[in-house]
Amino acid sequence: VVTRLGPGPEFDLIRRILAAAGSGAPGGADGGAVRVGPGDDCAVVAGDGIALTVDMSVEGVHFRRSWLEPSAIGYRSAAGALSDLAAVAARPIGVLASVALGPGDEEEVGPAVMEGVVAAAAAVGATLLGGDLTRSPGSLVVDIVAVGEVPRPVLRVGARPGDELWVTGTLGAAAAAVSAWLGGRSPDADAMAAFARPTPRTREALWLAERGIPTAMVDLSDGIAGDAGHIAAASGVRVVIDGPALPLSPAASAAGPDALRLAAAGGEDYELCFTARPGSVEAALAEFSERFGVALTRVGRVEAGSGAVVMDGTGRALEAGGFQHWGGA
Amino acid sequence: VVTRLGPGPEFDLIRRILAAAGSGAPGGADGGAVRVGPGDDCAVVAGDGIALTVDMSVEGVHFRRSWLEPSAIGYRSAAGALSDLAAVAARPIGVLASVALGPGDEEEVGPAVMEGVVAAAAAVGATLLGGDLTRSPGSLVVDIVAVGEVPRPVLRVGARPGDELWVTGTLGAAAAAVSAWLGGRSPDADAMAAFARPTPRTREALWLAERGIPTAMVDLSDGIAGDAGHIAAASGVRVVIDGPALPLSPAASAAGPDALRLAAAGGEDYELCFTARPGSVEAALAEFSERFGVALTRVGRVEAGSGAVVMDGTGRALEAGGFQHWGGA
Repeated sequence: VVTRLGPGPEFDLIRRILAAAGSGAPGGADGGAVRVGPGDDCAVVAGDGIALTVDMSVEGVHFRRSWLEPSAIGYRSAAGALSDLAAVAARPIGVLASVALGPGDEEEVGPAVMEGVVAAAAAVGATLLGGDLTRSPGSLVVDIVAVGEVPRPVLRVGARPGDELWVTGTLGAAAAAVSAWLGGRSPDADAMAAFARPTPRTREALWLAERGIPTAMVDLSDGIAGDAGHIAAASGVRVVIDGPALPLSPAASAAGPDALRLAAAGGEDYELCFTARPGSVEAALAEFSERFGVALTRVGRVEAGSGAVVMDGTGRALEAGGFQHWGGA
Repeated sequence: VVTRLGPGPEFDLIRRILAAAGSGAPGGADGGAVRVGPGDDCAVVAGDGIALTVDMSVEGVHFRRSWLEPSAIGYRSAAGALSDLAAVAARPIGVLASVALGPGDEEEVGPAVMEGVVAAAAAVGATLLGGDLTRSPGSLVVDIVAVGEVPRPVLRVGARPGDELWVTGTLGAAAAAVSAWLGGRSPDADAMAAFARPTPRTREALWLAERGIPTAMVDLSDGIAGDAGHIAAASGVRVVIDGPALPLSPAASAAGPDALRLAAAGGEDYELCFTARPGSVEAALAEFSERFGVALTRVGRVEAGSGAVVMDGTGRALEAGGFQHWGGA
C-alpha cells in the first residue's frame, strides 16, 4: 500500500504516517469491508449501507495547542467523528483525515496528530483509509471523515410522544476542562481526559440498536439542550429535559452553580442521547451496566409539540433554545 | 430533510445552504444510492463498492480570494475531489463539505462557497450529502469528501512494460492562470476557467473503464511528472513521458519557454492519465472524440524499471523526479 506513492517530500510524510499506522491493508481485520486502502486516488469500502460523516476541528476554535498535545488533537478530532457513527448505530470501518499543518509542523506535529487519529480509530476497530495533507498559513486544521456500515441506521426521526429520553455516561466534563482553561486554571485529570481523548459510544450504540431500543438517537456534541432539539425537529415532537436528572460528571459537579450549564449546554461529551418506549430501557439496564460499565440515565420525556427545553427542579424552563453556539463540533 | 435540524444560528446557515442546494433527499435522481441525506448525524449510501476521497483547499495555499469568487472556491474544491473519483472510474453519488469560514464570511461567502460545491457536484450527477460548518480564525478552508460507486476500481497498480501512456484533454491551463496571477497579470479567460471551474473527467473515465482500456489510472492534480510517478511506484515499472508530445493548452503554449514546465509540472489540470495496452486506445479513439469532444493523446510508454521521467525532444531527461511540490492538491 505504502509503496503506491511516488517520490517527493509530501509523500515521504504520508509514507511515514502510513507506516506508523500499520493499517489499511485490504483483507485485514476489518472483515473484508476495505477493498482498497490508503495510497490510491480513492479508498473503496463495501457493506450494506455505508454511513459517512465529517467533523472539522480548527485550532483557536475547537482547541488550543497549549491545551493539548498533538496526538490528543488528532485523537479527539477522530473520536468526534466516530461518535457521529455511533449516533446512527454504525459499525466503524475506517477514517480519512485531512490535515492542514502550520509552519514548522511537518516533522513532529503532523505525524503525532496522525498517530492520535489512528489510535482513536483503532480503539473502535477502524483503520486509516486515506486523507489529504496540506500546508496552512496559520491554524492547524484537522477534518475527519468517519466511515461505517449500518444496514438499519437509527435516525433523529422516530421519537413519539410518551417516549422517554435517556443518556449514556455523565455530562459536562469536557466543558469543565474548557471552562478551567479559559479561567486560567488547570483542569483536573478526569476533565482533561474527557476533553482530550473522548470515548465514542460505539459498542453501546450497536448493542442498544440490536435490541431495537432507541426510537431516535443523536450524540451529544453541542450539549443536550441543543442536540435533543434535533430529535424534536426531525421527529416533530417536543422534548422536555429534566435538568436535575442530568448525570453530572464529577468535574461538572465541582463547578457548583455552573454545573447544570456545563452538563446541559457544554458540549463535546460524545455520549449518546436517545428516546425509547417506556420500560424498554429498564428491561436492559442491568445487562447494559454490567457489560459496559457505563451509566444509563433517564433525563426527560417526549411530548406532543415542538422544540427542546430544559426544566429546573420547580418546573420552570431554563433558557429554552438558548444554548446553541455557532461553530461547535 | 432540512427540518431535521434544531434551532440556532449555525443551523440556520446550514438550512439556507441545504434549501439552496435543493438536493440530498433519499430516493431521488441518484438511483437509490442515497439512503439518508443531509441533516442527520451521518449520511448513508449504498452500492457495490463505495469509493471515498477527500481533498482540502486552504486559502493562501491553494487559492487566494483575489483570484476567485467564493462560488468558484467551492466549485474547484469539489471538482478536485470529484476528479479523484474519476481516477478510479467511480460513478459519483455525492459530496460532504467541511467549511471553516473566516470572520465575516457567514452571510455571503459561506452560502456562495456551498453553492459552488453543489454546482460542481450536480455537474457530474452528485448530490450534497452533508458536511460540517465551523469558524476559522484566519484562512477559509474547504474540505470536500467525494463519494461514488465503483464495483471494479481502476487503480494505480496494473501498468506493465510495453503499455502506452495516455492523457485526456490539454495540460497547463490552470498553472498558466496561477503563473499569471503570481506575475501580477490577469490570466486569459480559458486559463481562468480551467483554474476556477475544472471539469472532472467522470463520464470519460467510466466509458474507458467499461471498455477495459486503462490498465492503471490517476488524475492529474500535481502535474503529470509527479502523478505518473504514482503509477510507476504502484505498478513497479518505469514511466517515460515524451515531453514534446504533451498536449499543451493554448494558455500554456502562450507561455513560450515556460510551456513544457506548466504542462508537465503545473498541476490541477484534473485530466486523466492512464496506461493501456498498445493499440487498445486507437481502436476507441474516434468514438471517444466524437462522444466527448475531448482529446486523447499518447504521451509516453511504460518500461521495466522504476520512477517517472519526462524526456525532451533529444532523448534527455528533464529534472527527473524534481517536479513535486509539498502541499499540492
